[in-house]
Formats: sequence, C-alpha cells, structure tokens
Amino acid sequence: MAVTEQTTREKTAMNGAQALMRTLVDGGVEVCFSNPGTSEMHFVAALDDEPKMRAVLALFEGVATGAADGYARIAGKPAATLLHLGPGLGNGLANLHNARKGKVPVVNIVGDHAGYHAQYDAQLQSDIETVARNVSPWLRRSETTADVARDTAEAVAASQGPPGQVATLILPADASWGDGGQPAAPVTPPAPPVASADVIDGVARAVRAGERTAILLGGRALREPGLVAAAKVAAATGVKLYAETFPTRIERGAGLPTIERIAYLAELASVQLTGLDHLVLVDAKAPVSFFAYPGKKSYLVPDGCTVHELASPSDDAIGSLDALVEKIGAGGAGPALQPLARPERPTGELTADKVCQAVGAVLPENAIISDESQTSGVTLAAQTAGAPRHDVLTLTGGSIGQGLPVAVGAAIAAPDRPVLALEADGSAMYTIQALWTAAREQLDITTVILNNSSYSILNIELQRVGVQGGPGEKAKSQLDLAGPDLDFVALGQGMGVPSVRVETCEQLIAELERAFAEPGPHLIECGVPSVYSGLRLKAMPYALRALGSLPTPVARAIKRKMYP
Amino acid sequence: MAVTEQTTREKTAMNGAQALMRTLVDGGVEVCFSNPGTSEMHFVAALDDEPKMRAVLALFEGVATGAADGYARIAGKPAATLLHLGPGLGNGLANLHNARKGKVPVVNIVGDHAGYHAQYDAQLQSDIETVARNVSPWLRRSETTADVARDTAEAVAASQGPPGQVATLILPADASWGDGGQPAAPVTPPAPPVASADVIDGVARAVRAGERTAILLGGRALREPGLVAAAKVAAATGVKLYAETFPTRIERGAGLPTIERIAYLAELASVQLTGLDHLVLVDAKAPVSFFAYPGKKSYLVPDGCTVHELASPSDDAIGSLDALVEKIGAGGAGPALQPLARPERPTGELTADKVCQAVGAVLPENAIISDESQTSGVTLAAQTAGAPRHDVLTLTGGSIGQGLPVAVGAAIAAPDRPVLALEADGSAMYTIQALWTAAREQLDITTVILNNSSYSILNIELQRVGVQGGPGEKAKSQLDLAGPDLDFVALGQGMGVPSVRVETCEQLIAELERAFAEPGPHLIECGVPSVYSGLRLKAMPYALRALGSLPTPVARAIKRKMYP
Repeated sequence: MAVTEQTTREKTAMNGAQALMRTLVDGGVEVCFSNPGTSEMHFVAALDDEPKMRAVLALFEGVATGAADGYARIAGKPAATLLHLGPGLGNGLANLHNARKGKVPVVNIVGDHAGYHAQYDAQLQSDIETVARNVSPWLRRSETTADVARDTAEAVAASQGPPGQVATLILPADASWGDGGQPAAPVTPPAPPVASADVIDGVARAVRAGERTAILLGGRALREPGLVAAAKVAAATGVKLYAETFPTRIERGAGLPTIERIAYLAELASVQLTGLDHLVLVDAKAPVSFFAYPGKKSYLVPDGCTVHELASPSDDAIGSLDALVEKIGAGGAGPALQPLARPERPTGELTADKVCQAVGAVLPENAIISDESQTSGVTLAAQTAGAPRHDVLTLTGGSIGQGLPVAVGAAIAAPDRPVLALEADGSAMYTIQALWTAAREQLDITTVILNNSSYSILNIELQRVGVQGGPGEKAKSQLDLAGPDLDFVALGQGMGVPSVRVETCEQLIAELERAFAEPGPHLIECGVPSVYSGLRLKAMPYALRALGSLPTPVARAIKRKMYP
Repeated sequence: MAVTEQTTREKTAMNGAQALMRTLVDGGVEVCFSNPGTSEMHFVAALDDEPKMRAVLALFEGVATGAADGYARIAGKPAATLLHLGPGLGNGLANLHNARKGKVPVVNIVGDHAGYHAQYDAQLQSDIETVARNVSPWLRRSETTADVARDTAEAVAASQGPPGQVATLILPADASWGDGGQPAAPVTPPAPPVASADVIDGVARAVRAGERTAILLGGRALREPGLVAAAKVAAATGVKLYAETFPTRIERGAGLPTIERIAYLAELASVQLTGLDHLVLVDAKAPVSFFAYPGKKSYLVPDGCTVHELASPSDDAIGSLDALVEKIGAGGAGPALQPLARPERPTGELTADKVCQAVGAVLPENAIISDESQTSGVTLAAQTAGAPRHDVLTLTGGSIGQGLPVAVGAAIAAPDRPVLALEADGSAMYTIQALWTAAREQLDITTVILNNSSYSILNIELQRVGVQGGPGEKAKSQLDLAGPDLDFVALGQGMGVPSVRVETCEQLIAELERAFAEPGPHLIECGVPSVYSGLRLKAMPYALRALGSLPTPVARAIKRKMYP
C-alpha cells in the first residue's frame, strides 16, 4: 500500500516547491511556521500536496521563528519556517538568534524574488545572505528547480548538526515554480563522537583529586540521562553540579537530580564559582558575564581554576558522561533525587515570588514551562524545584520576545502536555502576536503575564553599569512601561485568547487550575510589584536570599565579597 | 548668553555617550526613537544632559525604526534610533529596509558589548555589521570614546546623502561609558548637483519632439516645487506626468497639480506605459514589476521607449526641473491645478471604497496620511484627489508593518498637523505596538483599521503567480486572518488608545470628525469586505474601473491587452 502510494506520487510531475515539500516530510520535518508573501505562493500551494505537513500561520515572523525553536526543543527534530525575503528574515532574526545560541535545529526557508528579477532592484530586493549569516552557519541559495530538493535534504541534515543550528535555505520564486522537481532522499547527519580516552582520563583525575571541582552541564546534558550520570559522579566524588544559566531545555522536578543554575548576575555567579580548582564543561561554555560592566571581569572562572572540556557541543555529551561514570566506577552510585515537595499555596496580595510559589503549588504533571519571566521569576527555580517533573525552556540568546513563540512551538510538538508560558510584560510585547496563533490552533497554553509596568531589569542594570548620580527623568522614562498601562486582558481577548486579570493569590490559583483543566489557550495577567523596585544594588544579595533563590551561605559570601 | 552657556557646557567632563548626545543635537538631530538595553544605559543616562533631545520609547524596535523614517519624511531631517545589539537591529530591519528604499535619512545607532567583551561570545554577541549591511550603505563602529563624536557627526551628514540613507553607527558600551568625550562640530553634507546642460538639452528635445513622452517623478520631485515645475512642462508640451508607485512623500490635493501614480499591478502599469517613445526620470527609477511572475516581464518600460534621466536620486531634482522649464521657455505656462472637490459623504454599509470616500469627504486641511491600506485603499487616491492639500506617505520598500510607526514619527515631526493612518489588518499586526507609543506621547493620530480578515493581496497574488488548479484548504488558511477574528478595538484599548468599531458610513464619518477634533490618538476599526473577494483575476480591470482608480479608457485598454 505504502509502496503503491509512493510510486503513484513519484510519477506525478512536480514543481520545485512540491519537491521541496516532499523532501521535508521525508526528512521528518512535518511542521512549517510561516508568514508568507507573493514569492512564497508556490510553497503555500504545495502545502496541500503533503497531508503530513502542518502549516501554522503567524502574524509576525518573530513568532514563526520562535515557534520553530520551541518546537524543536521539545520534538527533538526541526520544524521549517517560511519567511518573506530579507525583511521577513529581519523580523524573524531575534528568535533565530536565540535558536542559534541554544543550538536548536531550525530549517529556515526564506523566499526570494526569481533570480532574473534581482537585477531590477524591486522594492523588496535586498541582500538576504548578509542578514542570514548573522544566525545561520549553514546557508544556501537554490539557484534552480533541480537543486531545490537536494539542498533541502542537506539543510535538514545540517540543521541537526551536531550541534544543532539554524540552516537557511534561500528559495527563489522561479526555483520554486519551475517544473521538473524531484524529491531527494533524506541525508543522515553525522553521529556526535564520545570523548577520547585521554579526555576522560583527565576529567576522571580531576573529579577524584579531592580538590574543589564542579561539573557545569549545558545543552543536551540537562535532560534526564545526563543529569543522572552527572549526579552519579557527584554522589561518588562529592563534586558540585551546576547548570548553565540559560538552558535550552532542562528536565527537573520530582524524581530527577536537582541542579543549581549559574546566576545571571555576574556578581552572584562569581560567588558560585569562587574557590574552584577544576571546572568540567559538558556541552557548556565557561561562564562569562552576560554584559560587560566598567571595571568588572567578563570571564567568571576564577584565576587558577583548570577548565576541562569533557564534551563540546559537537560531541556526545551523554555518551561521554556515561564513559566517565564507568571510568570512575560510579555506575552503582545512588544519585540524589528530588522528592516531590510542593510549596504551600500562597494567599493574599500578589507578589512576583508568590506567583512563582503558586506555580510550584499547582503545576501539573509533565508540564512544559516557557520561562521569560525575567526579574519577576527570580524565585521560580526554587519554588518549582520539588514540583512534579517538568521541562523548562529558557531565553538562550538573551533576545527578549522569545517566551510566547517558544510556547506555541512547544505546544504543537507536545499536544498532550500542558504548556505554561511565564512572561514578563516588557518581553511579551515584542511578539505579542503569538497569542493569535495560540488561539487559531487552540493550543493548550496557559500564559501568565507578570506585569510590573517596567523594564525592571534595566533599573538594576543602570546601577550596575555605573551611571553617575542616578538616572534623570528622561532616562527613567525609558525603563518605565506605565502611562499608559498595558492591559493584557484586552490584548489577549483582542487576539481570541480567553483572558483574565487576577488580584490575589487565591484568584490566581483558581484561574491556573481552570486553565490547566480546560483545553485551549488562556491568559492570566498578574500585576506585581517590581522585584527590585526601591532596592539599591547593595541590597540585592539580601533581597535574593530572602527570596530563596540562593542558599543563605552563598548570600553571606556575596556580601563579604561585594562589601568587604 | 549662548556663548557663556556653551563655554560652561564644554568645560564639563563628558563620557562618550554625552559627547555623542551633544553632537547629535548640534547636528540638528533632536529626537531619538529607542528601545534600549543594558549596553545602551549610558546613552539613556545622557538623555538628561541634553534638554533639546526628545527620547521616544517604543516597545518593539520596528516601531522605533519606522517612526524614525516617518519623522524624517516630514521633518526633512533625520532622527536617531537606539537599538540593542544585533537582535534589536534585526527587529528594526524591516522598517529600515523601507527607509532605505525611500532614501530617507536615519541615524541608526546600535549599541554593542564593550569591545573586550566580544571574545567571550556572551548570549547577545552576534555579528551586527553583517545585518546592518543589508540596509545601511554607511556603516561604522566607534572603537574608542575619542572616536564617538566625530563618527556621530559623520553619520548625521552621511544620512542626508544625497540621497538620504540609513547611516548605522555601532556604539560599543565601553566607547559610550569611557571618559574624555568631546563633542564634534556638525559636518555639512554635499549639495546635490543640477543636471548638466547636455542632459537638459537631451530632455528638452524629447519633451518638445511631439512624440509620446512621459515624465516619471519620484523622491523629492513629488513635493510642490517639483510638481509645479513638471506641470509647467506638461502644460507647455503636452507630456504626460506620472508619479512613482510608492512615493516617500507626495504632496497632493486642492491647489496642487494632480499626478497619476504608476499602478502596483504590473498588468496595469504596462498599460499606463504602453506606446511611450520617451520616458524622463526625475529622482525615480524605470518601472519594474513589484514581484516576478512566471512568463511575464519584470521590466515594464515598453520596447523602443528611450529612457532619459534628468535627475538621479543623488542630483538636485528641483533645480534640474527648473532648468528644464527655463530651457523650454515654460516659465510662464499655467500648470493645471486641482480644484477643491470632495466626494459626497457616503452612507449605509461600509465598503473599502466607501471608507476611502469618507476620508476624501472629511479629511482636514494640512493632514498627513500614512497609507498602508493595501487592497482596501485601491480607490484612496481617486477619492482624495480633490481633498484639501495633504501629504501621503507610502510603503516605500514593500515590507508591511510600516504604516503605524511612520504615523508616530510624522506626528512627532508635525505636532500641529492631523495624522491619519490608514491601515490594513494584516499589515497592522507586524508593528501593532506603535499604538502604545502613540498613547504615551498623546500623538494626534487617527488610525483607521480596514479589517477584511485576510491577507487579501495574497489571494490575488496566488492567481497571478500561476498556481495551478486553485489553492487547497491549507493554502487558503495561510491567507485567512479570520478564526479568531482580530478585535482591534480591544488591541487599541489594551495599549491606551481610545478605540471604536463602526458599522456604517454615518458612524465612520462621525467618529472621524470626532477624532480629528479631539487631541490625542484615536482608533476606528472598519470591518470591510475584501476588495477582491470572489473576484478572479480576469474580472479585476472591471472592478478597478468600477472603483474609479483608473480612467475608463485605461480599463478598456487593459481588457484588450489582457484578454485579446
């Protein structure tokens, strides 16, 4: 039956777009997040030739690219995008940047004018390649219809690396509409290698040396197999485990090893790393400051600490960890696992911490959290550490406007799992159009907006960069999102998402439980005070300790370090 | 007094950001449209050192860049942007593309990490230059504090061309925060040259030859001096005048020469150009098809037509036209001027044409129209031809999502003029965040949303690109914006703009008059049927004739040409 069907299909004459579509599907790419234009109309028409291809329309390209990122993080395979020439790619660039930094596979298809049309410099003509190079190490233009399918198959393979990457295929309209397309067979990406015996020996010596050693896990090492293997090493040797600051996907909660993340603030990260003799990297890079600050170090590894790389992002992180476990004889070690331990249900007035607490209290089993809660989410990790097992997807490239689109992609990749998007007000507004796609596709996403009416992070950054004398009125207005206040209930309803604003923790919990129980998208707006409002930098460690994000000894150490 | 103040100011020690700010203001750049981040905090702090600098916050970078474009079109001088690293530039790229195509001056300031921080490949590190090259012929990175002010002065000059352009200055954080900044004196951009005597002689022969000749005006030639000069040539010689399809800024209405625009659809533009022996370009390019279509020509100038360039975009278009007028002795010719002739007030159910008619009926004196009404605005030019004098700003680069931001910039440039943004539903959603800035700044913008619940233009483009057998369900869903319907009243109110939906022409007119009379922003949503809904391509010329966009003989000619 399948053979007959395929034979029949292959006999049909195809244009380039149809051959591309078949090649995508045969290569396992079954979702396309799109915002097409005229030059992509043959691609659009070809959607109906492939029952396996799901096309998800976005009203803005940043939604499409962010959704492709979120999809791949959960599905473990790429989706395609469909963007309209250079400006469409520009609109999608910020979330492709996040995908690039997260090493997420994306087959990024950018339509272009017919090749012969470029010479006329029509309105939408621009240099697509120059933009694409910013995010896409693999970049190809299909010059002819005959090239399209082979280029597509190679793009699908290239996107999967290792490591995963954005692979951009520029598709001229005439290559797309031309006759004589032939689908191409899938190309298998190379398998990532396990660390060499020498590397494993070196790391084994470091973890058994009895010195102060930490293993920093990132990338694929933050899923259960990597966490368990690393926790066995920790149980056998006493080394400390850290996770990178912004994991692409981290599995956590009850039944899994708990792992402390390196803090966003360099002042705190430095304390976490203080005194280390060895730092072992597993699909992670040595910690650096997110931004540069006058008079402060960018590279956060302490002087005298030896850095070992067990597995680069191109290596087999799990295989390498397993080899380390075997080498040190830790196979029988019992890793420390997190028990189920939800926080109590918060009551009374909302604060950012109480929103995080409420999430920890009611998070359903097997949820996916898209976390772009920024300063308001500072206690999220602590409040959800003992929640039922879940995945967290974070802001891998620092370009805000990722959380809502990533939630869309994750929900499409896992229609049977509840998705919770925790979203700051400022970040939400870059890609607020994602709500419409969630409504159109009736995705099971609960969006919680933590609205503190400011770019709160910038209030603290203004102090950190050493602006003299405090900001003036015009500077402060650049960080302030009040006047007018954003009404996210109206915005959500305007795009077809049932939306509600809550004023108390009790209301929040009731709405969370309702949203998790009902299918389809929901939005819950929480007005919360700014975590840092009224605080000066010097007070931060106390505030953070009080908020439970770091253990008290660490907060004391920070205090000693920062205010000797 | 001024001298004393300047002396005092110069004695103050400055950092790079403060020197930059002073240099901008001294160069006449007095508005900055911004969406800053940590690496821009010293720039933000420096805002308070310059009382003449107005900082306008956008929630999304595409609003900032589009507003800078709209500002410059009306102010006749550049504004600055302030964007946050490569992803922020990406978000702003589409509207910078539109500014580039419109030859609009923009001083595009992109913050970056401190120079020494780049090596650590932190989350937001990316290759900013490669993105900027897509839109910015002038591109410079200020490596040190000492360079910042000189680079800024040169960027301000470069942006003004001729022709106007996007000039991108990359500002590393350490150049910004470093001490020892010194403001730089303004740099005067070169004056554009008038056409040579040879060129003027050649054009003079063409317009007096008695053959079929048209003058195509674009760029700066579409303001009153250029229109009047060209209309004198037409009055003296009988040549036909055309305007480019997407003018950056065109002055029109009662008291000015009326000029027919080259149609967007190549099928119609070809008819407009049929039979020409000479085409004279004045700050315009020879017409080409917006997109390529299978089997159709991209270059629309008829075979055998001689193209003359009186003034390139780098030349003095007005001076060259004046020289032509003098050469042919047309100085005393009486140009045909448009009398005041408003359409009647429409009544009953809304259609796209009736919305355009209502605009023609009630448009206030001296208005600015930001036109991104797409298919729904097909009769706008005809319905407003005899309205009181006004400016129209159009989609110069074809990248939708320009209209609302351009309206923001125009309103800031001309606070005493009413601004009308005519906006299609699909286009509005790319940069809907512009409404928040309009509300925050209490700009006098009346936004009319023409909501036909579809990417209507793509329905016709699907036919034009020759998709076989008609689109399937999945293809059609990619063009359809219903399910869920966008509620622009909710979206506007969610961002602080008083918003209303109207169902009849009477309601529309009442709300337009109220909005024009009251200060501050207003939004009026009009549900309209798709202009092309239910029409096949073959019916278009009839539809267009009926809608009054082209004179009937032209529609007959189109019919003969398309269906011989």
